[in-house]
Amino acid sequence: MFITFEGIDGSGKSTQARLLAAHLTAQGKQVILTREPGGSAGAEDIRRLLVEGDPGRWSAETEILLFTAARRDHLERTIRPALAAGTIVISDRFADSTRVYQGAARSNLRDTVDRLHDLMIGMEPDVTLILDTDPDAALARGLARKSGEDRFEDMGASFQHALRAGFTELAAANPQRCTLINGDRPVADVAQDIATRIETLL
Amino acid sequence: MFITFEGIDGSGKSTQARLLAAHLTAQGKQVILTREPGGSAGAEDIRRLLVEGDPGRWSAETEILLFTAARRDHLERTIRPALAAGTIVISDRFADSTRVYQGAARSNLRDTVDRLHDLMIGMEPDVTLILDTDPDAALARGLARKSGEDRFEDMGASFQHALRAGFTELAAANPQRCTLINGDRPVADVAQDIATRIETLL
Ligand SMILES: Nc1ncnc2c1ncn2[C@@H]1O[C@H](COP(=O)(O)OP(=O)(O)OP(=O)(O)O)[C@@H](O)[C@H]1O
Ligand SMILES: Nc1ncnc2c1ncn2[C@@H]1O[C@H](COP(=O)(O)OP(=O)(O)OP(=O)(O)O)[C@@H](O)[C@H]1O
Ligand SMILES: [Mg+2]
Ligand SMILES: [Mg+2]
Repeated sequence: MFITFEGIDGSGKSTQARLLAAHLTAQGKQVILTREPGGSAGAEDIRRLLVEGDPGRWSAETEILLFTAARRDHLERTIRPALAAGTIVISDRFADSTRVYQGAARSNLRDTVDRLHDLMIGMEPDVTLILDTDPDAALARGLARKSGEDRFEDMGASFQHALRAGFTELAAANPQRCTLINGDRPVADVAQDIATRIETLL
Repeated sequence: MFITFEGIDGSGKSTQARLLAAHLTAQGKQVILTREPGGSAGAEDIRRLLVEGDPGRWSAETEILLFTAARRDHLERTIRPALAAGTIVISDRFADSTRVYQGAARSNLRDTVDRLHDLMIGMEPDVTLILDTDPDAALARGLARKSGEDRFEDMGASFQHALRAGFTELAAANPQRCTLINGDRPVADVAQDIATRIETLL
């Protein structure tokens, strides 16, 4: 089973992905927790090009190509081998982030993102949990952290609002695979909600 | 005018590109000399991921995506602005290298390379000069240089022979744009041959 967490910057993805992995591991299940961009040695090298530096460092087109390169490496070297071994894979972001982030930045690029995905990736998660969190609260949470990986946060609040709308649309268009999770609750409440949903599916 | 140099590793591309740029500049023409992978700040960062490290660092598919990302940045930030200003652009490698290198490594990928080019690049040089040089002599020349950027040289002699065959086929398939130049001659003779051909075209 391949589970992904999606949502805007600071929405709580990494926190909840970690808690779900710990919860399933405690139940004796074989689980790996991975992330994008990154999740394999090569993809982590590409990640640094994407999350560091100036917001205008790459055009949206170049950015899509770099995300797809990182995803291809992650898929070949981490995700597929783990799924083949029967391990549950939990990924902190996957292809939906590219659809929404680049689609929100430049709406005419959504078709390019889809064609590139079909050509080079061609795979979807079984379940996608989208953390739906107030953008202003999320931005404050994320920036408070000061990771040095703030290229997308630095694009500003209106970008984060556009992203939230993009994730909401994506969930509506893919109801079988995607579930919106209210992220404006205490961490433990969100975690409980997610654990219950995943246990029902397993 | 957009001129590219192509050929196997150590065939003399960088040497001849530099000499042609100097020759045209001496004639009072506005010229820039650039290279791939690289040729813009972002693309040079991607270059390091491609030319350094272990030959098995990336799959052919990931490699194609990284080359295309670097090319897109190079095109947007260096090539197109220069051409728009009426400058002659001379590039040491361009899309033909991806066609031949990845096609030689894995023949079933040629179609993927072409589709990716159409989707994200969609542009060809006006003239492509392919240096056709004996692979064993070229490999010896290149390795003698010890640049630390030897990831492709490290793939071995039979790979270089397959590349030469790939470039020969490419020239035959694109006779309008591509010219094979015998690279097994002294540097000055090759340079004279190239200068004469370009002057005829200009
Ligand atoms: N439900 C919550 N309530 C309050 N704070 C939270 C909540 N969930 C996470 N946080 C805090 O908000 C910050 C961002 O959370 P987290 O790193 O999980 O988000 P993220 O979606 O992974 O962010 P990014 O997109 O930047 O990777 C962290 O400091 C985290 O401790
Ligand atoms: N015609 C020639 N005869 C002999 N040596 C040459 C000739 N042309 C170039 N060389 C030498 O061979 C080496 C490789 O040449 P060059 O760097 O121009 O090749 P290249 O095609 O750019 O190689 P690479 O693919 O590794 O970038 C250099 O040391 C150069 O001085
Ligand atoms: Mg995170
Ligand atoms: Mg060279």
